[in-house]
Amino acid sequence: MIDGPLEILVKQLASLPGLGNRSAKRIALHMLSNKDALMLPLAKNINYVSETIQSCHSCGNFDEGEICRICRDTNRDRSTICVVAGVADLWAIERTKTYKGIYHILGGVLSALDGIGPQDLSIHSLVENVRDNQIQEVILALSATVDGQSTAHYIMDQLDEFEVKITRLAHGVPVGGELDYLDDGTISTALKARGNL
Amino acid sequence: MIDGPLEILVKQLASLPGLGNRSAKRIALHMLSNKDALMLPLAKNINYVSETIQSCHSCGNFDEGEICRICRDTNRDRSTICVVAGVADLWAIERTKTYKGIYHILGGVLSALDGIGPQDLSIHSLVENVRDNQIQEVILALSATVDGQSTAHYIMDQLDEFEVKITRLAHGVPVGGELDYLDDGTISTALKARGNL
Repeated sequence: MIDGPLEILVKQLASLPGLGNRSAKRIALHMLSNKDALMLPLAKNINYVSETIQSCHSCGNFDEGEICRICRDTNRDRSTICVVAGVADLWAIERTKTYKGIYHILGGVLSALDGIGPQDLSIHSLVENVRDNQIQEVILALSATVDGQSTAHYIMDQLDEFEVKITRLAHGVPVGGELDYLDDGTISTALKARGNL
Repeated sequence: MIDGPLEILVKQLASLPGLGNRSAKRIALHMLSNKDALMLPLAKNINYVSETIQSCHSCGNFDEGEICRICRDTNRDRSTICVVAGVADLWAIERTKTYKGIYHILGGVLSALDGIGPQDLSIHSLVENVRDNQIQEVILALSATVDGQSTAHYIMDQLDEFEVKITRLAHGVPVGGELDYLDDGTISTALKARGNL
């Protein structure tokens, strides 16, 4: 059977992260049953987002215009840079509404297994930024995985020659987390880093 | 914060079946990282599918043109109608390549809980079809749930006055299924309907 546009749509949807053939079919049928309310506005907006949203020249965040709204915001502290692996992590930190500095997106983490070396990440521009712009603090907000932590150490080495404070996110018991379900590493880290009540 | 097009896209994606806020964000970011290869072709095809794919006037299947390729196919047996709840079920049966008749899509099953009565399903057109077109057999390929089976019984009652063979899918052990994991109802049904080796 030759593939019609509907079969192609199902294949396109199935190629999206987290979706498979079955969920793609379900979504395609759902769209077809809601053409005016969902399907046409979605197609229009995907096009519009594709045209208007671009990678911020300064931090790498996705937003309208060459410089994202975070980098444009004059109320934010330009002397503090939070280094994250990707835009999803930036969004996660922004959601907390507790951080007032700016960001730097690496575009991933170092990974020997996946063949991702320092030249594949935007580490060089971070070093330039720290050197040229009187940055006071670099927060390495990277995942607490082996790859995340080796990336953090690599960046620390690169920034060694500059007088800049380098910090990382605190490790400990997640808020709302039950001790019983936590791994031993987290518990022992939280115990060592215990603080006064 | 006022919602930009990207936030709207995430909301639109999150409204699709099986997707939530987190998976919608992941898909939106994945799209933005693959604009030319994925995002633009997807938007174009969603538009195209929305314009060209319609509900078949005869059976309710989604395809190009007013009559779907199954109803157009002169090699198919027009005296056998397979009644299914939705297009997904039609696709599932077509995938097996074992059925050579035509279909009738109900658009759901009767459900007292969801307030879906006979007038909400295309039962009337099925009855007309059986009355007018010398149909030999109606296969009720509905789910083995309470709602599916009560829908099957309702349709059987409606077709009672016509000389048409009414059949249903066989119940039994799924091919590749392990007895140990099957529910008691399926095992006792399969035992009662046992056949010669």
